Amino acid sequence: MNPKALYKLGYGLYVVTSKKGDRLNGQIANTVFQITSEPATVAVSINKKNLTWEYIKDSGVFAVSVLCQDTPLPFIGRFGFKSGRETDKLAGLEIKMGLTGAPIVLDNAVSYLEAKLTGELDVGTHTVFVGQIVDADVLNDKPCMTYEYYQQVKRGTTPKTAPSYVEEKKGA
Amino acid sequence: MNPKALYKLGYGLYVVTSKKGDRLNGQIANTVFQITSEPATVAVSINKKNLTWEYIKDSGVFAVSVLCQDTPLPFIGRFGFKSGRETDKLAGLEIKMGLTGAPIVLDNAVSYLEAKLTGELDVGTHTVFVGQIVDADVLNDKPCMTYEYYQQVKRGTTPKTAPSYVEEKKGA
Repeated sequence: MNPKALYKLGYGLYVVTSKKGDRLNGQIANTVFQITSEPATVAVSINKKNLTWEYIKDSGVFAVSVLCQDTPLPFIGRFGFKSGRETDKLAGLEIKMGLTGAPIVLDNAVSYLEAKLTGELDVGTHTVFVGQIVDADVLNDKPCMTYEYYQQVKRGTTPKTAPSYVEEKKGA
Repeated sequence: MNPKALYKLGYGLYVVTSKKGDRLNGQIANTVFQITSEPATVAVSINKKNLTWEYIKDSGVFAVSVLCQDTPLPFIGRFGFKSGRETDKLAGLEIKMGLTGAPIVLDNAVSYLEAKLTGELDVGTHTVFVGQIVDADVLNDKPCMTYEYYQQVKRGTTPKTAPSYVEEKKGA
């Protein structure tokens, strides 16, 4: 088996946010996809170790911001490589409070959606959360970031807790 | 809610195949994504009306071919807009029989994987199938087809049974 075959799967890059009581948090994800059109539902795979996982479990809501291609790496690093347990990831950002109460990140976003949890699947290290879309809008017509662009052009890296992390073998 | 916000989600384009006894079939899908890395698992959302859904349910295996950017529209049409109930979709194609017994389509593929079903989630019109990867390989370095490229550059359309189908309102 050649794990590089999996690199060919296509993704966008997203900030997935949720809340727990008054606390808000978000993280980077590349695995957001629509799974039904009637009603419109989306799925996202979230690592059980992540604070956003705990928040989605608690509140049953989440929001997704679709990132534009020119999203700066430090912005992605803020959401992808730091934990909301140690830092307020949303400090200083432009937020729209969603109908669900989940915070929608507007910085570097081309569109957003928010959803109420309707199902979930335990897949070991991760949970696939499924949510029915409550609200969604397009913000601008900028090109979207693809995961391929993030890795190849931006030279972005992937945290160990990501669904698509592949450990590079030393000397390989 | 603006359904066009969902158009911004990023996908690749894939042929998903399976089998039922000696019978083989496949269909186009855009919703294939990796959900865990240890072990490597992927998910795919398949419409319950599709023959491939019935085959995956029956055999518990599926294969995915990642399509290249220059995949001809008739090839996509063969898998996306025809049913295996009426036609042998694999006739004339180059196939590698996978370790799972699922047929791997090599025409227009840049990589492939095959998986054994380890979980599934009923999401109404569709089922999200989760499979552990049994084998995977890269075939070439051609650019991959993205769903966006398929729709915007190739002017490809989407069948009603797709997760991402959005009915165009007349007069809108």
